[in-house]
Amino acid sequence: MAGVEEDVVAWRRHLHRHPEVSFEEHETSAFVAQTLAELGVEVSRPTETSVLGRLRGDGDGPVVALRADIDALPIQEESGVDFASERPGAMHACGHDGHTAMLLGAAKTLAADGVPRGEVRFIFQHGEELAPGGARDMIAAGVMEGVDFVYGCHLWTPLEYGKVAAVPGDWMAAADFFEITITGRGGHAGLPHTAVDTVACAAELVGSLQHIVARRIDPLQPAVVTIGSIHAGDAPNVIPGEARLTGTARSFDPDVRSLIPKLIEEIGHGVSAAHGASFELRFVYGYKPVVNDPVATELVRSVVRDELVEPDPIMGGDDFSAYLAEAPGCYAFVGAGGPFPHHHPRFVIDERALAIGTRLHVDVANKVLG
Amino acid sequence: MAGVEEDVVAWRRHLHRHPEVSFEEHETSAFVAQTLAELGVEVSRPTETSVLGRLRGDGDGPVVALRADIDALPIQEESGVDFASERPGAMHACGHDGHTAMLLGAAKTLAADGVPRGEVRFIFQHGEELAPGGARDMIAAGVMEGVDFVYGCHLWTPLEYGKVAAVPGDWMAAADFFEITITGRGGHAGLPHTAVDTVACAAELVGSLQHIVARRIDPLQPAVVTIGSIHAGDAPNVIPGEARLTGTARSFDPDVRSLIPKLIEEIGHGVSAAHGASFELRFVYGYKPVVNDPVATELVRSVVRDELVEPDPIMGGDDFSAYLAEAPGCYAFVGAGGPFPHHHPRFVIDERALAIGTRLHVDVANKVLG
Amino acid sequence: MAGVEEDVVAWRRHLHRHPEVSFEEHETSAFVAQTLAELGVEVSRPTETSVLGRLRGDGDGPVVALRADIDALPIQEESGVDFASERPGAMHACGHDGHTAMLLGAAKTLAADGVPRGEVRFIFQHGEELAPGGARDMIAAGVMEGVDFVYGCHLWTPLEYGKVAAVPGDWMAAADFFEITITGRGGHAGLPHTAVDTVACAAELVGSLQHIVARRIDPLQPAVVTIGSIHAGDAPNVIPGEARLTGTARSFDPDVRSLIPKLIEEIGHGVSAAHGASFELRFVYGYKPVVNDPVATELVRSVVRDELVEPDPIMGGDDFSAYLAEAPGCYAFVGAGGPFPHHHPRFVIDERALAIGTRLHVDVANKVLG
Amino acid sequence: MAGVEEDVVAWRRHLHRHPEVSFEEHETSAFVAQTLAELGVEVSRPTETSVLGRLRGDGDGPVVALRADIDALPIQEESGVDFASERPGAMHACGHDGHTAMLLGAAKTLAADGVPRGEVRFIFQHGEELAPGGARDMIAAGVMEGVDFVYGCHLWTPLEYGKVAAVPGDWMAAADFFEITITGRGGHAGLPHTAVDTVACAAELVGSLQHIVARRIDPLQPAVVTIGSIHAGDAPNVIPGEARLTGTARSFDPDVRSLIPKLIEEIGHGVSAAHGASFELRFVYGYKPVVNDPVATELVRSVVRDELVEPDPIMGGDDFSAYLAEAPGCYAFVGAGGPFPHHHPRFVIDERALAIGTRLHVDVANKVLG
Repeated sequence: MAGVEEDVVAWRRHLHRHPEVSFEEHETSAFVAQTLAELGVEVSRPTETSVLGRLRGDGDGPVVALRADIDALPIQEESGVDFASERPGAMHACGHDGHTAMLLGAAKTLAADGVPRGEVRFIFQHGEELAPGGARDMIAAGVMEGVDFVYGCHLWTPLEYGKVAAVPGDWMAAADFFEITITGRGGHAGLPHTAVDTVACAAELVGSLQHIVARRIDPLQPAVVTIGSIHAGDAPNVIPGEARLTGTARSFDPDVRSLIPKLIEEIGHGVSAAHGASFELRFVYGYKPVVNDPVATELVRSVVRDELVEPDPIMGGDDFSAYLAEAPGCYAFVGAGGPFPHHHPRFVIDERALAIGTRLHVDVANKVLG
Repeated sequence: MAGVEEDVVAWRRHLHRHPEVSFEEHETSAFVAQTLAELGVEVSRPTETSVLGRLRGDGDGPVVALRADIDALPIQEESGVDFASERPGAMHACGHDGHTAMLLGAAKTLAADGVPRGEVRFIFQHGEELAPGGARDMIAAGVMEGVDFVYGCHLWTPLEYGKVAAVPGDWMAAADFFEITITGRGGHAGLPHTAVDTVACAAELVGSLQHIVARRIDPLQPAVVTIGSIHAGDAPNVIPGEARLTGTARSFDPDVRSLIPKLIEEIGHGVSAAHGASFELRFVYGYKPVVNDPVATELVRSVVRDELVEPDPIMGGDDFSAYLAEAPGCYAFVGAGGPFPHHHPRFVIDERALAIGTRLHVDVANKVLG
Repeated sequence: MAGVEEDVVAWRRHLHRHPEVSFEEHETSAFVAQTLAELGVEVSRPTETSVLGRLRGDGDGPVVALRADIDALPIQEESGVDFASERPGAMHACGHDGHTAMLLGAAKTLAADGVPRGEVRFIFQHGEELAPGGARDMIAAGVMEGVDFVYGCHLWTPLEYGKVAAVPGDWMAAADFFEITITGRGGHAGLPHTAVDTVACAAELVGSLQHIVARRIDPLQPAVVTIGSIHAGDAPNVIPGEARLTGTARSFDPDVRSLIPKLIEEIGHGVSAAHGASFELRFVYGYKPVVNDPVATELVRSVVRDELVEPDPIMGGDDFSAYLAEAPGCYAFVGAGGPFPHHHPRFVIDERALAIGTRLHVDVANKVLG
Repeated sequence: MAGVEEDVVAWRRHLHRHPEVSFEEHETSAFVAQTLAELGVEVSRPTETSVLGRLRGDGDGPVVALRADIDALPIQEESGVDFASERPGAMHACGHDGHTAMLLGAAKTLAADGVPRGEVRFIFQHGEELAPGGARDMIAAGVMEGVDFVYGCHLWTPLEYGKVAAVPGDWMAAADFFEITITGRGGHAGLPHTAVDTVACAAELVGSLQHIVARRIDPLQPAVVTIGSIHAGDAPNVIPGEARLTGTARSFDPDVRSLIPKLIEEIGHGVSAAHGASFELRFVYGYKPVVNDPVATELVRSVVRDELVEPDPIMGGDDFSAYLAEAPGCYAFVGAGGPFPHHHPRFVIDERALAIGTRLHVDVANKVLG
């Protein structure tokens, strides 16, 4: 459809300029809702910052759900693009701006073409980057009721432009999240023996936690334990009495998944005891692994017009897994080849990929409905 | 003098409620200036947030300077006292509220009694907690011109109430300050191999820096290297591309003092190279050691009415050393016995010590002038 | 064949009592050579401590090679079995005693039954546990000339008794080996600042090397870096000027394999520089991955009389891979279920497994020749 | 006395060639006993490898004991001197060869001159380098009975040739010793998750123990914790189930001295728990601080013919402190200026110092007796 590709690029750049972090997608969801309404799509708001669009055909038929995540990350953009984030400390560094724009483009095409029967649902989900993510709120609000197949489309810079991955079985890792608090005893920086130094304790802890992946999990089982943030102290001459760390664990195997928090506890208590400090862990089981349904995946593969590839699974997680617990589906990855990894301050995508993702949404929906 | 003791306690509590961190002592210095003016002391403002008071006698005579530091620390108070800080994130956790109040009390007494000859200068100094401290600004503004002796009085909780320390020679350590920046490569928390993890690098660095004191400095030379703050990352699922640390080094010996930044550089570059990261150190030579003049110290000792003690030197630093480079003097410590170390969020003093410090200022001034 | 099973158990126990570490298998190889000769097998000695047995049929036909490794490990046995090692510091803790005995049992059966045509070669290889292993010496001596298929049979305690694994494709990891020398400056334990402490440096290095697997290799790529030994110092009151470490790296992917020594170098030089020490790495590429040939593996699977299972690949390495570079083949694993892992001082096997391995050798040979 | 200086050098070189480690000084003590006997000194053997010489005057008078330690260290010599150690792995790297020779020289001189009254005792003590040292055996055997003053003379390379230090009060640190055993679970190097890796645990422990001196002891109190040896594992491809470390702690203050083993316990148990390993500490209180008696020290100072200096105390320990618990005395240090620290494999002394030490022994003895 003439003009849709240009719209998608324009929408994506608008969203890129105005990123909103997880659960704060007020302007983003308003923009999506208004755009859908202008396209003639039936709009509802399952939650405060999410949007559901529906195109219903005249007769009975299958229901296919297409999902995009709309939230940004708390990263200060350094990409240098013209349409860089205008909001300090927030950035679309994972491509959700593109996901949102592609799904809007698919809605425009499908609305113009008309849905003959059945239904297409457009799920614009908030809060994918922060566990427990927005998917469970959406499902609780009923967006998956009656859905026969669910699809999603992720832009992926490690994959070259022109390639599409739709892989059956294990595809994305379980993604869990944790917060650690180390409590010591604050004091004068020149009198360390009168304090319990939480900086020294936290530092040893970060090193000791590396043994989980390096020594304590079967090397044949993929696993990651990342400390994403560490914060302690406000002054050079004061020993802080508390240190806070946050992180994420990734795995596929359920036994490995449940072993990781046990090991963090064991290591955390041991290292803190060595320093005379105390340790507290808050571990949140986030997203299950994304496991693509073989039949639903084959359907995607049948409509791919570009180069179909089958890369290794991905240690990134996604709460798309929550939809897959409700209906068979597939999370396809569209090559958007760029020099920087996702979540990097200089992350950029090859915008030509937007047309591929848009088309894939449309083709999959038509295939299910046809 | 009747009532002065009550004034000192009241002033101290007022200041404790309204702490201002280093170089932001606007209300504090205004309060001091106004109080001095009301007492009939000649007032000037050497810098924006400091105050100089002068009481001049009729005839020629010695000039004695009495100094108090007036700034607070960036600590969230947890002391539970009635007059706790009303300013979030700021606290008088080192006793400077008391120092200020005691010197105001001395001014009130000396103003009432009259200065027969010579001059008493009251130096209310800003920014003692942050190097390079306020003392050098005060001296540049001329507060030490013509001064014959300079004295200060520090409340000290490790010392029991009722005791006073005035020790000749090495008394407080050199206090230097540094900032470290580790630069890696940000990335997705599930794909650590595509990033350079600055949290892991900073953690190993903190551990490795412990070898400076533990292994690389003569054990007979007192030294401390403290990392007072560490900050990296904003999200659990993003590997941060930068980590920032600040800290302080304490020593007495000049060779040890100059060795420490060299070792931080050596260790920092080595550990960062091991992680593929880069390292940058900004090291600021802060305060020289406080070395009390034997003659000036003997003068203090001669007027102490309480129990004179001679404890070990102190690893805390103070820019009182800058005044000692201009005139002979002594930094006396007044026991204010409390359960928590200086710079602790629950720091409290024994307020009875305020009377001792106030009296010491007055007695020393009279002794010099007499 | 009546009595063979008892012989195999007896031979295995004899060998268990008299373990010889890699490249020192003098008595072991003499025992094998004599036993084979008594069985009527043609015997030669490809190297000083290895043995080749041959049974040739009358007419032309395929040549099948069966290989057992015969060396023990430098471990002090703590198994408590009656026939425990009589040689201090040496132990058959990997099951090579059983491998040797099973292949002798196969030789006895095949010699008694007669080989109709073609040839069966019995390769009793020395030095499997120490890279570069004995396989390359054997091949250089010509043991693989004219071989059509090569098979081996490994007892495996993580696998239950009664199960056999013969898995096509990637089966065992590449196993590489390294030695690290850290050179500092020896000195008096009470004067650490006059020395460069290699114990402290080596300790930090071991911790820092954990980042290779935990942070710097794709979590989807299996990899292990183990420091198997660390040695420094002879006295509590002397700082040693040298520390020595040895270890092994395991991987499947060639890029990961070649990345590991680069990272060890990077980390080693960085950490040593942080301590003022120097670092030297000797890295030996050991064994390639064992990749079983699909056709040869299918042949094994067709004769397995027990439960055929398909477990995950194994991070252990084996220079059986060297034979697989010369002829298609398969390395089968026979369940010998026991409570302790291979290379553990209390390692024991379920001796019933010996009959299964012996029979597998015989059946495979007959299948190839038949 | 003509010739004594040459004898002392020759004796010292002979002893240097034939070092014997602590408690194995068989040849050394035999050599001393024979030499003394030839000089006409009354000889007895308080223990198997020590010697007591006595020269008694005719009349009553004071008894002065002169002590030398005679044992060597388990270090492989790399000094390159002509008379280097002929015994592999043993070396006089602390100067005890010189101490022994100097005291023999003093015996020769005093025997030739004759002792007018009272008595000179020559204590040739074994096992100074290994706590609990030989001094307590000597004292138990009665060598200090009736002694009025006790003196020793230590060659010291950090002190320039020509200088002598005899300092009243705190002079050498308390020297304590410890052994640590970490017990994990041995296993296959490629399967770290089935083992408990004692190398990784020991490495983290060594790093964590640095916090004792760096963070947990008053920086004004001199203290050292050195890990002198670490040993684990025999093969690169086996994870060892046990690691052993030995070390020494140095301090002056009794509270610090007793705090150190408590902290080693706390840190050891914490770090080991973090790895799932167990920890055992054997801590031996070795030598008390050497505190020189003011009167006895003044006596030494009065006879020094060279440059008397007053350096800082020394973190090295010596069981000379045991004698000082029995009688007042002084441990004098004689400058033997060399480029390498004591206990270094390339340790050498300036042999001209031998004459100074010999003379000091003689002069002190004559002063006491005179």
